[in-house]
Amino acid sequence: MKIGIIGLGLIGGSLGLDLTKRGYEVIGVSRQQKTCELAVQNQAVTEASLDLSILAKTELIFVCTPIGAILSTISKIIPHLSPNTIITDVGSVKSAIVYDATKLWANFVGSHPMAGTANQGIEAAEYNLFENAPCVITPFGSTNHEAVKKVSQIWEAIDCKIYKATPEIHDQAVAWISHLPVMISSNLIDSCINDENKDVVSLAQQIASSGFRDTSRVGGANVELGLMMAQYNREQLLSTLKKYQQNLNLITDHIEKENWQKLQEILTNTQKQRPKFID
Amino acid sequence: MKIGIIGLGLIGGSLGLDLTKRGYEVIGVSRQQKTCELAVQNQAVTEASLDLSILAKTELIFVCTPIGAILSTISKIIPHLSPNTIITDVGSVKSAIVYDATKLWANFVGSHPMAGTANQGIEAAEYNLFENAPCVITPFGSTNHEAVKKVSQIWEAIDCKIYKATPEIHDQAVAWISHLPVMISSNLIDSCINDENKDVVSLAQQIASSGFRDTSRVGGANVELGLMMAQYNREQLLSTLKKYQQNLNLITDHIEKENWQKLQEILTNTQKQRPKFID
Repeated sequence: MKIGIIGLGLIGGSLGLDLTKRGYEVIGVSRQQKTCELAVQNQAVTEASLDLSILAKTELIFVCTPIGAILSTISKIIPHLSPNTIITDVGSVKSAIVYDATKLWANFVGSHPMAGTANQGIEAAEYNLFENAPCVITPFGSTNHEAVKKVSQIWEAIDCKIYKATPEIHDQAVAWISHLPVMISSNLIDSCINDENKDVVSLAQQIASSGFRDTSRVGGANVELGLMMAQYNREQLLSTLKKYQQNLNLITDHIEKENWQKLQEILTNTQKQRPKFID
Repeated sequence: MKIGIIGLGLIGGSLGLDLTKRGYEVIGVSRQQKTCELAVQNQAVTEASLDLSILAKTELIFVCTPIGAILSTISKIIPHLSPNTIITDVGSVKSAIVYDATKLWANFVGSHPMAGTANQGIEAAEYNLFENAPCVITPFGSTNHEAVKKVSQIWEAIDCKIYKATPEIHDQAVAWISHLPVMISSNLIDSCINDENKDVVSLAQQIASSGFRDTSRVGGANVELGLMMAQYNREQLLSTLKKYQQNLNLITDHIEKENWQKLQEILTNTQKQRPKFID
């Protein structure tokens, strides 16, 4: 089976490594000649080119570009493809992609493999990046069932755990577990450094330890990614932000009114609920 | 030098291990006979007793009880002490302790060594728990300078890094780096599980990964400790909660108005500022 990958960064490159290792013929496309050369050299792809026409004979194409380039990339490859070719993507938001992409190409299926490292680029690509990683496939009413099946099979072949959800449910879930955490974590750092008492800020910086380190981690991470999440999943992120703020008002109110029984119930419940997310 | 430790749990026991190792004579007091026996056996103390009168000849006493028992413990030991004895504590809040404790005993100095593990009790005590840990000493106007010097010397002897701050500055700083994170982290779990769409909650639980794991960690931890922080540092915690909420309103507003430039500035700044807290 001949598989295309457009965008040979961390995700595209790692996907290529796992697929070539399993015997697939992988055709890579990058905008950089140097990246094409490196990808061939590392065996992330069988062959690579700057030219989209190289994808003509592929049966399944993974669009692994940044979110903002997915739709325009699909428009550009369409003239080169036979109608049976299946296209999928790896974007971390789905509603903003899936409906328009399906209008452009009926055999489109949205995917979101939840894997990554702190590094970027083909140099950072690694084998087994997707092992045991969740991969959400987001079919909706008019999505081709056969295409869903084929895309799922490939992700399963590289050891992803497959989940299926509508684009909206996916986007609300990732807003909770990924996009909202970036904002509340960034806001922890931001509101602390804005404390008007600079002695407080200075002492806080000196004595901060593991609790602050963990809670602030994603707020101090990749700026472009955080911004992109907010731009492309704006509506769902706003919905979680508002629910988060309403709930935080309740907690603040319990503390204000010294309603320790209620606060204890909340803390006891979150202690009990957390393992359901991380086990 | 003869040093007393009241409360032989993780902190008191670990303190005892480091002090006996450095040649101090350490007198322990616990409410449990079994704990006294274990502490002697482990060399966390030189001798131990259920009876506070054993502390009569000590020069410096560490009160290592839970916060709620510190003041009553000081009241109970006073009848046994000579006036030169210095008392300090290890509580994680200071305004609620230091002023009243100083009224009870002029030679009182507040301490907060920022060390710990997830475990509790004398069985969890370990050597070098305080190595490189910040320890905040919180003198105020009427605090005895010589007592501050002696207490600092002992913490330095077991390799703490000493910081000095007023009780208020300490409490505001720990509200930012320790108590507020518990509330915002617990609130992430709480508001997510309260999403009215149960398919969203279920998918969120299945796909949550490192970002959610880290941001939610302290919200899923020790309930009693979280509750105690809120009770004994209520005013400062409320102050940080309100600043946090105001700031989060600004971020939400930028997303609502698609003011990406502003959001980018905040994310870029928090990325730049975070290393000042964790390096």
